Amino acid sequence: MKRKITLKQIAKELDVSISTVSKSLRNSPEIGEETRLKVQAFAKFYNYKPNNIALSLKNRKTKTIGIIIPEIVHHFFSTVINGIEQVANENGYSVLICLSDDSFDKEVLNMEMLANGSIDGFIMSLSKETQFKGDFHHITEVINQGMPVVMFDRVTNDILCDKVIIDDQSAAYEAVQSLIDKGRKKIALVTTVDYVSVGKLRTDGYIKALLDNDIPFNENLIIKIEDVDTCEITIGKLLEDKAIDAVFAVNELFAVTIIKTANKIGLNVPKDLAVIAFTDGIISKYSTPTITTVSQNGIKMGNKAAKMLIERLESEEDEEDENYKTEVIETHLIERESTH
Amino acid sequence: MKRKITLKQIAKELDVSISTVSKSLRNSPEIGEETRLKVQAFAKFYNYKPNNIALSLKNRKTKTIGIIIPEIVHHFFSTVINGIEQVANENGYSVLICLSDDSFDKEVLNMEMLANGSIDGFIMSLSKETQFKGDFHHITEVINQGMPVVMFDRVTNDILCDKVIIDDQSAAYEAVQSLIDKGRKKIALVTTVDYVSVGKLRTDGYIKALLDNDIPFNENLIIKIEDVDTCEITIGKLLEDKAIDAVFAVNELFAVTIIKTANKIGLNVPKDLAVIAFTDGIISKYSTPTITTVSQNGIKMGNKAAKMLIERLESEEDEEDENYKTEVIETHLIERESTH
Repeated sequence: MKRKITLKQIAKELDVSISTVSKSLRNSPEIGEETRLKVQAFAKFYNYKPNNIALSLKNRKTKTIGIIIPEIVHHFFSTVINGIEQVANENGYSVLICLSDDSFDKEVLNMEMLANGSIDGFIMSLSKETQFKGDFHHITEVINQGMPVVMFDRVTNDILCDKVIIDDQSAAYEAVQSLIDKGRKKIALVTTVDYVSVGKLRTDGYIKALLDNDIPFNENLIIKIEDVDTCEITIGKLLEDKAIDAVFAVNELFAVTIIKTANKIGLNVPKDLAVIAFTDGIISKYSTPTITTVSQNGIKMGNKAAKMLIERLESEEDEEDENYKTEVIETHLIERESTH
Repeated sequence: MKRKITLKQIAKELDVSISTVSKSLRNSPEIGEETRLKVQAFAKFYNYKPNNIALSLKNRKTKTIGIIIPEIVHHFFSTVINGIEQVANENGYSVLICLSDDSFDKEVLNMEMLANGSIDGFIMSLSKETQFKGDFHHITEVINQGMPVVMFDRVTNDILCDKVIIDDQSAAYEAVQSLIDKGRKKIALVTTVDYVSVGKLRTDGYIKALLDNDIPFNENLIIKIEDVDTCEITIGKLLEDKAIDAVFAVNELFAVTIIKTANKIGLNVPKDLAVIAFTDGIISKYSTPTITTVSQNGIKMGNKAAKMLIERLESEEDEEDENYKTEVIETHLIERESTH
């Protein structure tokens, strides 16, 4: 990872406070000439460019948290926001939410808008496009200016910051293992055609569970699907060929569509086909049959992310270390009718 | 409605520009002494209190729209936000979202935070608590300072501003009429126990449809329900007594719970019980049977609200009249399996 030097690092290197660095860079007469010139030379050497964000940060606290999420018509992200709101409000923080619509440009613009004095720190989940591009300069910039960022769910190893994730690989492993325990052998993985990091981890978990149980891995049973309509056609064909007896779907919409497809051709769920969906939402709870899901626990994830951000915001900055943490939220299987 | 005098009104009364009023109140030397003193005297007489919001408004445009909604885990509000984002982005505006969690205090705090220089105008739907209290001072204040507000769905007659609503009464009328057309006579209205304005309008539409069709109105068939659990018990009893043959539910969760309750005691939907839900969301589309709904068209509502706000923001303020409009978005019945 390429890093620009931060105010914090300059302060540490020169053994002065961040406020001294900040003031020196603004050529403040409060700072003695020797220190001022030393800081300026050091900053210049490391190509440090101060800007309004960093300067304004030292002067005011907004007591506001900015959230950037990819989409809003999505039960998981909504519950994470509720989780963030709970902890934020308990600690006297307000919350501002922006949507990236899974667009890189919108993510960059929204970060810029929020960072410009409206908030103290970010909680965010990356847009699909950002993950695909691998361009995280907008996030690096904000962090380098001293504004903390906590990432959740869709994260990247290319950025050093606090993160809250679930273990997608073990969650998928556990789900597939539970299908195997119920005697299923022809298990399909129904996933999306995109670049979201979690997709790969879930596939890894699926494959590992099969191999650990001496079930040969058949690449044709990893089904990448564009949308709900193609889901119906593809799965319909597999069901008619009796090629599968269980499905692990990466979202609820695929799972409920698969159940309806099975019913249409006279098959019974769970007797002829067991179904597990990733992410517990309202569809799984209210569909017929109800659907067994892997719960991502969005509330807990939101609580944790808010706690991590507020702790960082309220720690004494000069003493703060940059030991970023990655918290793993436990998932669990919610067993319902679709696998009984 | 009690109104404070606005910058705009002072300008109109004294036949000067808003900018002249604003500058006079700040005692700017740009304005001749005679005008300055006249404006100040007038403002004092009408108890006009300038503040940071109004002053900063004249000086900068953020090109940002603030949205305040009661809750986020709610398909209707999510689709309205998507509708607002579409039009906002097309016109170069960013969008900031805050949640009131149906709390009056949170609504007030969020409005204050956003109005303080982060946005150019508001699109909002009132919290339940605000509707119950009937206290709208925070909204009046923002409007009086010259910041436009567009309300949608949960609106109030006590505030003069642009509004986007659906005709809840006719929507309910149409739904109940469609049940009557299918030969149903014992139609229950399943509603919530709260103070949301739309609840009353839907009840009015329900009663009117019955009476217009010479079906006697039975107060016991208006069923006010706390939550999904009490829904199951109350409806279960009515079904066992064969007291109802159709249900008009004010939300999807009640509708799907009623269908499951009917199935449990061996009744068939739609044969023994026809079901219509208010607000079209993902549950209705994916439940078994699929549920007939009244679609509120959240996208269209969001589009319209954003258009109204942006038009007001971009009109020449000095020529602007205050002819506020209320746009009514048409609803339509989406017929599915639960009423066939």
